[in-house]
Amino acid sequence: MTPFKLTDELIVEIQQLIEDKKNTALRSMMKEFHYADIAEIAEELKVDEATYLIKLLDSEKTSDILAEMDEDIREAVLNNLSAKEIAGELEELDTDDAADIVGELPKEIVQKVISQIEDKEHAADIVDLLRYDEDSAGGLMAKELVKVNENWNVLTCVKEMRAQAENVTRVHSIYVVDDEEKLKGRLSLKDLLTTSTKTHIKDVYISKVDAVNVNEKSEEVAKIMSKYDLEAIPVVDEIGRLVGRITIDDIVDVIKEEADKDYQLAAGISQDVEADDSIWELTRARLPWLILGLFGGLGAAGIMGGFEEMIAQHAILFFFTPLIAAMAGNVGVQSSAIIVQGLANDDLKGSISNRLVKEMLLSLLNGLILAALLLIFTWIWKGDFATALAISISLVVVIIVAGIIGTFIPLFLHQRGIDPAIATGPFITTSNDIFGILIYFWIAKLVLGI
Amino acid sequence: MTPFKLTDELIVEIQQLIEDKKNTALRSMMKEFHYADIAEIAEELKVDEATYLIKLLDSEKTSDILAEMDEDIREAVLNNLSAKEIAGELEELDTDDAADIVGELPKEIVQKVISQIEDKEHAADIVDLLRYDEDSAGGLMAKELVKVNENWNVLTCVKEMRAQAENVTRVHSIYVVDDEEKLKGRLSLKDLLTTSTKTHIKDVYISKVDAVNVNEKSEEVAKIMSKYDLEAIPVVDEIGRLVGRITIDDIVDVIKEEADKDYQLAAGISQDVEADDSIWELTRARLPWLILGLFGGLGAAGIMGGFEEMIAQHAILFFFTPLIAAMAGNVGVQSSAIIVQGLANDDLKGSISNRLVKEMLLSLLNGLILAALLLIFTWIWKGDFATALAISISLVVVIIVAGIIGTFIPLFLHQRGIDPAIATGPFITTSNDIFGILIYFWIAKLVLGI
Repeated sequence: MTPFKLTDELIVEIQQLIEDKKNTALRSMMKEFHYADIAEIAEELKVDEATYLIKLLDSEKTSDILAEMDEDIREAVLNNLSAKEIAGELEELDTDDAADIVGELPKEIVQKVISQIEDKEHAADIVDLLRYDEDSAGGLMAKELVKVNENWNVLTCVKEMRAQAENVTRVHSIYVVDDEEKLKGRLSLKDLLTTSTKTHIKDVYISKVDAVNVNEKSEEVAKIMSKYDLEAIPVVDEIGRLVGRITIDDIVDVIKEEADKDYQLAAGISQDVEADDSIWELTRARLPWLILGLFGGLGAAGIMGGFEEMIAQHAILFFFTPLIAAMAGNVGVQSSAIIVQGLANDDLKGSISNRLVKEMLLSLLNGLILAALLLIFTWIWKGDFATALAISISLVVVIIVAGIIGTFIPLFLHQRGIDPAIATGPFITTSNDIFGILIYFWIAKLVLGI
Repeated sequence: MTPFKLTDELIVEIQQLIEDKKNTALRSMMKEFHYADIAEIAEELKVDEATYLIKLLDSEKTSDILAEMDEDIREAVLNNLSAKEIAGELEELDTDDAADIVGELPKEIVQKVISQIEDKEHAADIVDLLRYDEDSAGGLMAKELVKVNENWNVLTCVKEMRAQAENVTRVHSIYVVDDEEKLKGRLSLKDLLTTSTKTHIKDVYISKVDAVNVNEKSEEVAKIMSKYDLEAIPVVDEIGRLVGRITIDDIVDVIKEEADKDYQLAAGISQDVEADDSIWELTRARLPWLILGLFGGLGAAGIMGGFEEMIAQHAILFFFTPLIAAMAGNVGVQSSAIIVQGLANDDLKGSISNRLVKEMLLSLLNGLILAALLLIFTWIWKGDFATALAISISLVVVIIVAGIIGTFIPLFLHQRGIDPAIATGPFITTSNDIFGILIYFWIAKLVLGI
């Protein structure tokens, strides 16, 4: 399989077909494409063209296309559809995807759309899902699942399952509940293939079943599912009733979003943006950290101004401030990144003080190696051993302090329940720049006896 | 389900049990834990203790524990096992996990271990898998899958499947092949539940099936599976024969590793390290970029030295170098991160020149806002409008250049087939520091007419 590659020629061709209203050609062309590919195509079209395409194709396919599309463009397209048309799309979607779409609709039309859904049970399920937080198990789960009562026998079970399976794209596990809908265990499809039809479910089901609470954070659900290699996990409410099911494909999205978010935070981008967003959106995401950096820089300027009297005899010290600031920033980012990642992957063990001692030793080792290099280069270059020594000693201390700050801040934030990822990038760089420069001049002054 | 939480008390308790050789207590204690949790426990034990635990438990469970364990610790434990014991563990594992473990064994014992595997077919499958690159579809896939011949009927099919399913943890899809083992299509379990037993597979299978080539890069496989929401994908060789299957749980690992790697590169960490690695390993991963930063700093010092004559009248200019360098670094990292992420997610469209124009406009907008702030602050603070203006104009130019460098370099690397992620972090920061300072002094000189 070669993955689908979107080309400009293809877009132009499709736009021409839409302009000429060549519906038959369009339909047969789209038949060849996977809905995920059509979603990509639609994102490149103008909103009116995308709407035309959506209205042209069967809602069985367009519902999946819509579910796959970028939020902003989907919103624009849905704006062009009637409540009845939107309801028709929702009818075809699994409840989790349908609820995601309904959640984005303007409040005033939600009720209108929901009331137009013909399958009342489906509509009720969607409404149920709307009340859960987006970032919780409830926000991720779908209502579609296959469940059987522990009092049935395998034959009844298979019969009921056939009916239920109609609505479920992938079966994975068959969940076993009692008369009160409480989750008791599971049956694997494999087991069902090898059990006699008269056996009671009670006697064959596996009582050990992993489940998550409906209020569990989605990040936590992702951790559980990937750690235990689960492809689906049932969701229970506060009193243990089976209310939904989360499948691994939703978790893949959670993992990717988490990773993207952490990466962006580390790079000083404060909102979820993409390269193709507008200049205005990108500015709003990038400016806050830059303003922080600006004030950090003003702080550094202030500090250096305080050492102005040193300029006369030791101008050379000033030439090394960018080096010191950069090293402080780099070390801080490295230390914090390792901690942030360790926290995200849950593999940080031991106490904070042990971590700090380790980071201190690590920074000392790195600092000594780097300082030795710096000493040799600067000495040869400037021929002034005392100054070279002063700068090098400062570098070691600055690196150690930077490492400790980079280690401590994310750990501290994490302990306070704040996402440690915000501590990486510009925040660490800026604070380390300032501390670095302050320490540098202070130590240089001390060593040079000024 | 509350996720398992490893505590120091638990480790101490287990260590005590091991020391006292309380095997029955240990066995019944471990029975309560998932293998993924025992792997976590084992990673906290000393190697001898972990080995003791592995030797104590059934290989059915220990094989999964070993497969789940951190590579380094697994290697150490396997070192304590005989070839026969290792073979026993491999016997219980799926071929993909078994091949991963064999791939790490010292070359001289591989043959000995393989020859001790009793199931000769299993051994042959493992050997087959060893020849594929770790980062390819072949390196990810398992040999375990359920396949049926297109000429069978549903009854034969179900019978054969029962036998095959014994070896397959999760069935997902039933693949249909012809007499030459070429992949023809698939059957879903659901279809099988609703088809009469005499029907020929030829007449019911779905001929549309996504498959990847055995040489496809694992990153590409991850993209395909997550884009098309596939939970398993068959792998075919150069002439279309079905050779294996990749399941989504392997892909989850690929996605996480990719994200972790990009994050580390952005933070200037050049190898795959964890917070719990040794100081020496961490130094090796962190030092290279720090040395780059050191030379960048020396370069900056050299540039500033070239403007030394300005110090007498305009010392204030020198105080603002950390600010300029930091802003250049921050903007560069932001721009490059957005491009790197866009490339990773395959959602960058349009030409390089369009990107650069957009980034220029974006940087201009950000730069003007920041420069206005800087102008006001510096003017009020220092009372010197000409200098404040010179610094502010420089800032705008520096930000634009930094944005362009940050955008261009990852795009350029990507075009050359180099991972653009290496361009983020210290590389961009360092080069932007130098360019920024050079541009800054040059423009300041021009504006102030020195």
